[in-house]
Amino acid sequence: MSLDGFVAGPGPTLEAPLGEGGEQLHEWTIATATWRAQHGRAGGETGIDDEVAAQSMSDIGATIMGRRMFSGGEGPWKQDPNADAWWGDDPPFHHPVFVLTHHAREPVTKAGGTTFTFVTDGIESALEQARAAAGEADIRLGGGADVARQYLMAGLLDGLRLHVVPVLLGGGVRLFEDQGPGELRCTSIRESPTGVAHLEYRTVRR
Amino acid sequence: MSLDGFVAGPGPTLEAPLGEGGEQLHEWTIATATWRAQHGRAGGETGIDDEVAAQSMSDIGATIMGRRMFSGGEGPWKQDPNADAWWGDDPPFHHPVFVLTHHAREPVTKAGGTTFTFVTDGIESALEQARAAAGEADIRLGGGADVARQYLMAGLLDGLRLHVVPVLLGGGVRLFEDQGPGELRCTSIRESPTGVAHLEYRTVRR
Repeated sequence: MSLDGFVAGPGPTLEAPLGEGGEQLHEWTIATATWRAQHGRAGGETGIDDEVAAQSMSDIGATIMGRRMFSGGEGPWKQDPNADAWWGDDPPFHHPVFVLTHHAREPVTKAGGTTFTFVTDGIESALEQARAAAGEADIRLGGGADVARQYLMAGLLDGLRLHVVPVLLGGGVRLFEDQGPGELRCTSIRESPTGVAHLEYRTVRR
Repeated sequence: MSLDGFVAGPGPTLEAPLGEGGEQLHEWTIATATWRAQHGRAGGETGIDDEVAAQSMSDIGATIMGRRMFSGGEGPWKQDPNADAWWGDDPPFHHPVFVLTHHAREPVTKAGGTTFTFVTDGIESALEQARAAAGEADIRLGGGADVARQYLMAGLLDGLRLHVVPVLLGGGVRLFEDQGPGELRCTSIRESPTGVAHLEYRTVRR
């Protein structure tokens, strides 16, 4: 998230899905050894950012994401140019991924243990399916912001990891918008030499 | 600031100027020994929140604030019920305060070294006057959010201290809104046992 609360910049396109300046929010991750290894590359930074990246990917048994996070598109799959190509042939998940969508579709199996299952009957159903797939492992909410908010508002989110990058985007997609009031418990704050504030929260049940 | 970016909650009134839930953003400060001492009270918490509170008040030679931060009101002073009473007879500043307003008014001198000077010719003039008053000491921007953004956008802000409180207000006054893109340099991140993330940034000149 940018310091001004955006998880993507203004004017996202299929070519630049993070919007104007949005790539700045991911530079810290992409530089890490963990991210590079996950994407089949050698080298990369070690240190706090890398530890945080590794932690955020460890013990994840399933991922839930929104349709736009999956393909960048919307509407019927036949009209979606990225319906199959967005995440490549060897997606970095290596576990079952559940995609929230209004448009039914057969599951897609990719290399390396990644499967995409398309869920049309809502966030609770996706969570139930993810739970069954993940077993004892955690379920990661892969985004976007609206999906995160839906789970937060439904009281189905246990925790939140925010990586606040010292830039102002001035516009774009806000992580928090109209989700209503709430209380969280801060469990960890870590400062990275890159200036990223890694904040961890648990949601508080009422 | 709340985790969702608000420095005051929804629906501020003269009686509850911080809006619904907004008082939660200040609980950490009000509990500190530093804040209590500044307001003539004994006791209070020591620890990280107290250190941060002390630091934010140390070596300040002048404060700049907006009209609403001064009185909660707007328009001609004669029609403003808090024109004189908002900050009490012994305001906690103990140095010159410059109030940005569209309505001219003679300076007000209070006990303990606090003076309120009303500036009608803009933020640069207020900064100039504050500089003359502060000498070598720092100038603190007392808010509100719109005043902070005006100085930020004009490139007149050297640094930013954010205290991110683990609550979601769900609405209210955003600190960052339409201020455009920018880059900052993170200089300090401190975790408080109260769950407040104390973040310090310097602005980056282009």
